[in-house]
Amino acid sequence: MSVEIYWGSGSPYAWRVLLAAEAKGVPYVSHLLSFQAKEHKTPEFLKMNPRGAVPVLKDGDTVVTESLAIMHHIDQKAADPSLFGRTPAERTRVLEWSSRVVYDMEDAVWNFARPLLAAKPADDLAQKVAEARPKLEDVLGQLEAALASRPYLAGEALSAADLAAYPFLMFALRAAGKEAAKPLDLGLLPLAARYPRLAAWQGRIEALPGYDRTYPPHWRAM
Amino acid sequence: MSVEIYWGSGSPYAWRVLLAAEAKGVPYVSHLLSFQAKEHKTPEFLKMNPRGAVPVLKDGDTVVTESLAIMHHIDQKAADPSLFGRTPAERTRVLEWSSRVVYDMEDAVWNFARPLLAAKPADDLAQKVAEARPKLEDVLGQLEAALASRPYLAGEALSAADLAAYPFLMFALRAAGKEAAKPLDLGLLPLAARYPRLAAWQGRIEALPGYDRTYPPHWRAM
Repeated sequence: MSVEIYWGSGSPYAWRVLLAAEAKGVPYVSHLLSFQAKEHKTPEFLKMNPRGAVPVLKDGDTVVTESLAIMHHIDQKAADPSLFGRTPAERTRVLEWSSRVVYDMEDAVWNFARPLLAAKPADDLAQKVAEARPKLEDVLGQLEAALASRPYLAGEALSAADLAAYPFLMFALRAAGKEAAKPLDLGLLPLAARYPRLAAWQGRIEALPGYDRTYPPHWRAM
Repeated sequence: MSVEIYWGSGSPYAWRVLLAAEAKGVPYVSHLLSFQAKEHKTPEFLKMNPRGAVPVLKDGDTVVTESLAIMHHIDQKAADPSLFGRTPAERTRVLEWSSRVVYDMEDAVWNFARPLLAAKPADDLAQKVAEARPKLEDVLGQLEAALASRPYLAGEALSAADLAAYPFLMFALRAAGKEAAKPLDLGLLPLAARYPRLAAWQGRIEALPGYDRTYPPHWRAM
C-alpha cells in the first residue's frame, strides 16, 4: 500500500515531504490541494489535521502531521538514504540543524520574502526588506560556513535538515527575483556570486531523482 | 566524564535540557550563566555557540546546541526513560508533538506572556493579552484533548515532547499569576479548573526526581 501525501503548491513544509519521498524512492499517492478552493479546510481534511494545514501523510490508518515527523515516517519506508542519521551522533546533528532551520532560517526568510511576494507591494517595501535583510544574510552566511567542511548541513550525507532548509532557500531566491526586488539591489542573485557553497548544495538537491515532481506547479507559470 | 550544561535562569529552552538530564539521571556539571552580566556573549561562549544562546551542552570535545538536539544527546547517556521513543512509530510521534510545541505553543505563549512579564506593563496591556488569549486557549485545549487518551503527549511514556512543552506551560502560568494579570480575569489559574488533564500532566512532570534542581532560581524569589 502506498502512502498518501496531501500537499499544496508553494508550501515549503509540504515541499520538504515530497523531497523526502522522492529522495527515498518511496512511492506515494499525491493529493495536491487547492488553497484557493480551501481544500485544506474541508471537514474531511480537518478530521486528519484539525489545524487545517499541509502537509499530511496517510499510511493505512496512520495519519501523521508536521513536516519533520512525516519525513521521519517516510524515512522508515526504505533504507537509503538515511534521512535522520545512522548513528546516535548523526541523529543529534540532524536534529540540531533541523532546529536551526526551524528557529532561525524560517522567520528570516518569511520576513524577507513575504513583502516581496505580496500581490500588491506595500509603500514601505524597501524599508521592510532592508530590515529583514541582515538576518537573512546572517542565516545564509551560517549555512555557507557549515558547507565549507562538508557537502550537507548535518554531515557527509543528505539528511532531513537539508530537505527542511531547501524550500526556504528557494522562497528567498524567488522573492529576490521578483520585479519589485530589482530596484533594491539585493545582491542575492545569482546565489553563487556570494554563496558558492550554498549554490553547489542547491544543485546537489536539485539533482535528486524525482526532484522535478516536487517543484511547486504554480511557480512554473509565474 | 560528566556532560556540562550551560543554561540561564528562566530560559524555557534551557529548562528542557535540565529536565532531560534529571529525568534520565544523567550527572552533569551545571554552568548557570548570568544573562544580566552577558555571560552568554563572552568570546569563550560564542566559540561554542556563535548565536550566543543557551542551552549549550559540552561532552568532551563535542558541543551540541539547540534544545531538542541536546535532549537527544542526553538521551543516549542512559537507557531509561527513552525520551525519543523506542520504535520508529514512537519516534515519529515524539517528533510530531515536539513540532507542535515548537510551531504552535511557543509563539502562543510568548505573545501572551511577554506583555504580562514586561518590567513596565504597556498602556495597551489588556488589549495585547486579549489578542493573544484565543490562540493560547486553543493550544492548551489541544494539549488537554491529547491527554484524554494517554498520560503523556506522544504516548504512554514521558518523552522529549513533554519536556519541550512543560517550560512553556510554566511561562504562561507565571504570566497569568502576575499582579498585572489579576484585573484581566483570565481564568487560567488554577489550571485544573479548566484543564484538569493538563494539570495532572504538570504534576507528573514535577514529580520527576531532581525536578527541584531545574526550577528557575530567580523565579523562587519573585
